[in-house]
Amino acid sequence: MTTLVHNTFQLERDYPVPPATVFRHFADETLKQKWFGTDEGWTSLGHGMDFRVGGVEYDEGRWANGTTSRFESRYLEIVDDLRLVYVYGMVVDDVRLSDSLASIELTPTDAGTRLTLTEQGVYYDGHEDPALREQGTGWILDNLGRALTTA
Amino acid sequence: MTTLVHNTFQLERDYPVPPATVFRHFADETLKQKWFGTDEGWTSLGHGMDFRVGGVEYDEGRWANGTTSRFESRYLEIVDDLRLVYVYGMVVDDVRLSDSLASIELTPTDAGTRLTLTEQGVYYDGHEDPALREQGTGWILDNLGRALTTA
Repeated sequence: MTTLVHNTFQLERDYPVPPATVFRHFADETLKQKWFGTDEGWTSLGHGMDFRVGGVEYDEGRWANGTTSRFESRYLEIVDDLRLVYVYGMVVDDVRLSDSLASIELTPTDAGTRLTLTEQGVYYDGHEDPALREQGTGWILDNLGRALTTA
Repeated sequence: MTTLVHNTFQLERDYPVPPATVFRHFADETLKQKWFGTDEGWTSLGHGMDFRVGGVEYDEGRWANGTTSRFESRYLEIVDDLRLVYVYGMVVDDVRLSDSLASIELTPTDAGTRLTLTEQGVYYDGHEDPALREQGTGWILDNLGRALTTA
């Protein structure tokens, strides 16, 4: 017997830079590498990014404990400086954990930009707790905040 | 200004045939054409189906009033006779309406099969009401029911 769990979460962050700057940190591979999926104890096994509708992005690596993971994403909708929609899968040690439809919206504010991320995901066979995915995604957005303010 | 609307709906149908039969009506292109996206006043402009993880399915046509529409889907997860996950976009007259993560689960019952369809979608700029999508998807599942019982 297998099971699917469906879960949706939404996160908001305010950044003190204009939407075009936030957008560039998603669209430019070098800038994205500064904040996305980098961590101590992580060895990259490869990444690629083809930033256009239909293009694939992937990021693959090994943790210090030997666990490997692969993020693979495909862009579905891109509106410069405004929004970005992609679908991504997570595979850990060759087990598929989940597929998620993710959307990013950028809204100009007096102080800079409000980013709203919404993830609608399907999780396979109890391999991952959606609450942990939400927490991990929040950390990644905090990494982005640090990259934006220390550039 | 653009807007995104996120919506999730779930539909259930009971069919008086075993899961393997229902599954075959998704996996076999000839069987699928009997129930999916066929309607009076619809002229097909092409379809294709590559039923494997990573493969694309598309179905394109013109309505009697001249409106064209294109369904384009990519398979993310396939477990024979059990489940199917795909992401699909709908484009009408070259305007992208939505992207959706859809999952189908098949559960054996005493009478045959319970199908559970869950769609987690993002809808662009008010071009489509998610309630209508849910209604239309329900009709398609009813078409499947007729195809299963008149085969």
